[in-house]
Amino acid sequence: MTAITDALRITRSVRLADVDPASTPGFVGDKVAGAAALAAGADRLAEMQERLYAASRAGGDRSVLLMVQGMDTSGKGGIMRHVVGQVDPQGVRITAFKAPTPAERRHDFLWRIERALPQPGMIGVFDRSHYEDVLIHRVRGLSKPEVIEERYGRIVEFEQQVAERGIALVKVMLHISRAEQGARLLERLDRPEKHWKYSGGDVDEREQWDAYMEAYEIAIERTASASAPWHVVPADRKWFARLAVHELLIEALEGIDPQWPVADFDVATERERLIATGDVAVVEADAVSGSEGEGLDEPAGEKAGKKAGKKVGKGKKAGKKAAKKARKKARKGKKTGK
Amino acid sequence: MTAITDALRITRSVRLADVDPASTPGFVGDKVAGAAALAAGADRLAEMQERLYAASRAGGDRSVLLMVQGMDTSGKGGIMRHVVGQVDPQGVRITAFKAPTPAERRHDFLWRIERALPQPGMIGVFDRSHYEDVLIHRVRGLSKPEVIEERYGRIVEFEQQVAERGIALVKVMLHISRAEQGARLLERLDRPEKHWKYSGGDVDEREQWDAYMEAYEIAIERTASASAPWHVVPADRKWFARLAVHELLIEALEGIDPQWPVADFDVATERERLIATGDVAVVEADAVSGSEGEGLDEPAGEKAGKKAGKKVGKGKKAGKKAAKKARKKARKGKKTGK
Repeated sequence: MTAITDALRITRSVRLADVDPASTPGFVGDKVAGAAALAAGADRLAEMQERLYAASRAGGDRSVLLMVQGMDTSGKGGIMRHVVGQVDPQGVRITAFKAPTPAERRHDFLWRIERALPQPGMIGVFDRSHYEDVLIHRVRGLSKPEVIEERYGRIVEFEQQVAERGIALVKVMLHISRAEQGARLLERLDRPEKHWKYSGGDVDEREQWDAYMEAYEIAIERTASASAPWHVVPADRKWFARLAVHELLIEALEGIDPQWPVADFDVATERERLIATGDVAVVEADAVSGSEGEGLDEPAGEKAGKKAGKKVGKGKKAGKKAAKKARKKARKGKKTGK
Repeated sequence: MTAITDALRITRSVRLADVDPASTPGFVGDKVAGAAALAAGADRLAEMQERLYAASRAGGDRSVLLMVQGMDTSGKGGIMRHVVGQVDPQGVRITAFKAPTPAERRHDFLWRIERALPQPGMIGVFDRSHYEDVLIHRVRGLSKPEVIEERYGRIVEFEQQVAERGIALVKVMLHISRAEQGARLLERLDRPEKHWKYSGGDVDEREQWDAYMEAYEIAIERTASASAPWHVVPADRKWFARLAVHELLIEALEGIDPQWPVADFDVATERERLIATGDVAVVEADAVSGSEGEGLDEPAGEKAGKKAGKKVGKGKKAGKKAAKKARKKARKGKKTGK
């Protein structure tokens, strides 16, 4: 638990008017410090995600579902780009829930949600969710009050089943002020390359601001618990909202604590089999175990050679030379021999 | 067309033995320069992707499909992380084609490919593809020679239809040396946190190296043309392969040249409607048009204020003050009024 995630957690109810959308609870520092913290955590997030994915390849059944709700312009897209975008895209699946299609409408409101739940090893991300069915439906009267009433209970049950399936659910409401929304909508109107993001409907929804805040408060109160908390993330400062969701993701992954799978093969045997294929520059095993990242690697052959050089105490240059020699030899072998 | 993409393009046939996997065709510079070039192009790639997406919201039907083939350890995953990962994850869909499931096997080999084609506005990415049905199938004899023979023609036709649907197809073969593969497989065996990536089958496939190179050469020859070229990307240096695929993606997007959609609403009217809702700190339109990125924005309200301050010549500090005042006023209005 970090100071931030701790400060944002709602397990019972919340009065949104009491949460300052421009505040940065749990974080002491400005925008520059916040951006630095976000960047500094990228490797940790990436490693935890890779572990989650790796564990699933060995039978692990855990996954994460990040659910992001918020008014128009609250920064959901920015969370996708700058937080979800920190993670290997192979391990992420984003689903945006728009107004349901006619086909979706023929089913129960949880039907399309169920189908989008993350597979083991994956981080699922919902841009809006089943909560729209108790938010806009309540504000706009799209469903009868008794239907909406029933849905809160259905949601609680559903989320419990989701948790039992091994899916760690992270529920986030991006909380912006009405003034900040006004400024962001105005910016969309004043910048031609943002026009495509604007819809006249945004203003219609804005006119129901207070009703939406009330609907959020009720939804949160009815569905928040210690085992399925909400997180109200002040979102007037985009940098803070991003840092907060980033920490929530890391926290969820650390809660799962996925481990690198143990080899289901005999490493020594496979090593021999591989070397027997030829073209393999061999280095002592203990010289290559360790810590290098997957960043902008040089050829692994060269790297191995470097380490070999280091090992016999000849330094970097000699190692490079050794690697080149090893690779050259291997290539030559391929051309002539085999 | 950049020097790199130009150098990698295959429109007829290729002798893989003549392409040095450690070379960096079209690029003069080392790993550091390559990494810098990749980072420098991130904004361009992101903007082009956003335009593609935006254009589709206004009826544009274009999309991009990046198809990545290559031997085990050739760096497909790294392309996903470091190149595809540069793009807004909302605009990307990655599909990894593994050995077909029993259900997939009951269909034609192109069935699952067809279903994974990108929607308008999206960048689709294939990790392996329909080419497996003429590569491993040929090497392992999984299909009869006459079936494989027929497939080349089917693929050419299919890719032509894909192009006619507005999908810009980018076909990439990551070309590593056998020696480099040996080193990378060895690394997977020697680092416990990489064991999950290793499979004994990788060595079996490695033993068929020459047969695979032949299968690639035939597949490329039978399916490369000026309108559906292949790109053989030397991949012993990961940094180069990533830069090359990055440039290929940008090139495909520039070929489409998607434009920001023109507003389908009257901007002035919407501006008035928005302002009438209250809580909107108004600035002159021409003061906010322009160039700021979507990075780690401060509240848009504050930004607008800054600009307003600048406009009346009071500098940054005064602008910030003006914005604060405007937001405060807006908030106050909300609390008391309405």
